[in-house]
Amino acid sequence: MAVQIKNTLSFIESLPKFFSSLDLKNTAFFIDENVHKHHGHLFPKELVTIIPSGEEQKSFSSVERLLNQLLELGLDRSGELIGVGGGVVTDLTGFVASIYLRGIKFRFLPTTLLAMCDAAIGGKNGINFSGFKNMVGVINQPAGIIYYPAFLESLPKREFNSGMAEVIKHAIINGGELNDFISSNTQADIISNAHLIKELCLMASRVKVDVVEKDEKESGRRKVLNLGHTVGHAIESTHSFLTHGESVAIGMVIAARIAVLKNLASEELVEKIISHCHAHHLPTEIGLKPKNLIEKIAKDKKRKKSSVDFIMPYEIGDVRIVPLELLELEAHLNTIANE
Amino acid sequence: MAVQIKNTLSFIESLPKFFSSLDLKNTAFFIDENVHKHHGHLFPKELVTIIPSGEEQKSFSSVERLLNQLLELGLDRSGELIGVGGGVVTDLTGFVASIYLRGIKFRFLPTTLLAMCDAAIGGKNGINFSGFKNMVGVINQPAGIIYYPAFLESLPKREFNSGMAEVIKHAIINGGELNDFISSNTQADIISNAHLIKELCLMASRVKVDVVEKDEKESGRRKVLNLGHTVGHAIESTHSFLTHGESVAIGMVIAARIAVLKNLASEELVEKIISHCHAHHLPTEIGLKPKNLIEKIAKDKKRKKSSVDFIMPYEIGDVRIVPLELLELEAHLNTIANE
Repeated sequence: MAVQIKNTLSFIESLPKFFSSLDLKNTAFFIDENVHKHHGHLFPKELVTIIPSGEEQKSFSSVERLLNQLLELGLDRSGELIGVGGGVVTDLTGFVASIYLRGIKFRFLPTTLLAMCDAAIGGKNGINFSGFKNMVGVINQPAGIIYYPAFLESLPKREFNSGMAEVIKHAIINGGELNDFISSNTQADIISNAHLIKELCLMASRVKVDVVEKDEKESGRRKVLNLGHTVGHAIESTHSFLTHGESVAIGMVIAARIAVLKNLASEELVEKIISHCHAHHLPTEIGLKPKNLIEKIAKDKKRKKSSVDFIMPYEIGDVRIVPLELLELEAHLNTIANE
Repeated sequence: MAVQIKNTLSFIESLPKFFSSLDLKNTAFFIDENVHKHHGHLFPKELVTIIPSGEEQKSFSSVERLLNQLLELGLDRSGELIGVGGGVVTDLTGFVASIYLRGIKFRFLPTTLLAMCDAAIGGKNGINFSGFKNMVGVINQPAGIIYYPAFLESLPKREFNSGMAEVIKHAIINGGELNDFISSNTQADIISNAHLIKELCLMASRVKVDVVEKDEKESGRRKVLNLGHTVGHAIESTHSFLTHGESVAIGMVIAARIAVLKNLASEELVEKIISHCHAHHLPTEIGLKPKNLIEKIAKDKKRKKSSVDFIMPYEIGDVRIVPLELLELEAHLNTIANE
């Protein structure tokens, strides 16, 4: 039973026009603090709850605060919650809406490139718990994902780049038109052209939609979306100055290097990925401490196993799930660190 | 898209035989404190978490404690959680399993008549929040509901009676063989006969299964399962010495009396319901303070509306959803209180 996501994606050109389509007596907005600074005045003030920025918001104490907000606004079972922001806001919005009164309708208005092309799509939501990322949550698709590209105009440049890391990931997974698009358009071209932004969002989100529609519960193929994330997450948690996208960029290059070490890919693949990353001002290497990284990876989600499902790029458009012993992974990381 | 529940119900005759069918390296049991006193020695000790008795366990702090237990046991995404107890345990088990690692498999071993015939069935789970019952949770069906009638042997008599209130509710909703069964078998007959117990569980659970399979999300017909509960919940929360079933019994009689006052049912219906309740040692009236009850009902789930969907019995086997103004409900309660 495949889930249908494609037809829940839509573009809007005006926020007030969108608001006029809502039942504002039974609606609440959760809005990221920074988005609120730039765009908050456009929203119906009394319906807005501001979510402070930062991953530490993904906690039970935030969830309880937000549930109380919905109670105070008096939302009933036919109410709607709209999350406006990046991945933290969409994760919290999806989870809170899924458990309030045993589930009310929710939609997302992603405001970062990363959320538009990745985080808002796929129905995974939740919070961190007991030191583990996304340990608690549900899989529940939003009723709609609404694109308002004007949000990107106020997005800091470094956040835009960070989002491009996930776009590049989708290009590596799928190859095809998305890979052609980011190969032939510079970032300067894209940012200055609303039409290209729209095209980019459409193509990048379509890759994720296609994968999720076929494997919502991540029993198999959906895992390829973790390309660059096994090592990337470990780097992110040991190098707090890096953004998520920057860590993933480094993680993808490392994944390709490991594929080369295992004779599964050519050096050319590594260079293509590095070239994509550099075109979008993303780092592609960093001083590695393989022992620390492996400890992080082994601890991730209290893994009992001695191996991981490693996402291995064979070439652009051919990415596979390959079981890899942690000992072998550590050996490869040591080789890469000493190159 | 109707949900399938019928084929998830099964009977077992031995606990050890059931345990031998499980992957005990990846299983956890949540067990009610009182059940544990009587049957705890049969369970794999290191996999057991005891849930203290009482509705106050349905809280976020319990949920966090239980999530930590699953982490400590190292359950992964292919693990299984089994809830052993009454409604509080099944509510907590279903909710915790639904949000741990974004959802793992769970099954119930209901130990009370109420849980066997009602609470364990239907996939509603959750906790109380901010003073409201079942404010937070999800709808998610267990992978199995396992009946082990021997649990009823250690169930206090008053708890058995309380469960019979929900059985009587199902008999009123559905009429038919269940109504014939409880009309023609005394409680003494039933309790002393394992075959009759099994038949009772099967018939009573089937009524709920049929309703839920057609309307899992309670957008319509499922509401009839609230027969006796609108007034019953209010009575329960203002008369702490009553069990849930006792309050529901009084609530059902009041619902029938209101149907008579509105010329929708005959006095004979009230007498039939009273007769069922008395046969199972359930109270059928109590001193009413209509103003307090209406305040409770209006406050329930922060209701903004001035009316309720009242579940009205027209006759045995014919129960309907009738919108009722709270003012009219209060007037009827006053009439009944002064009779």
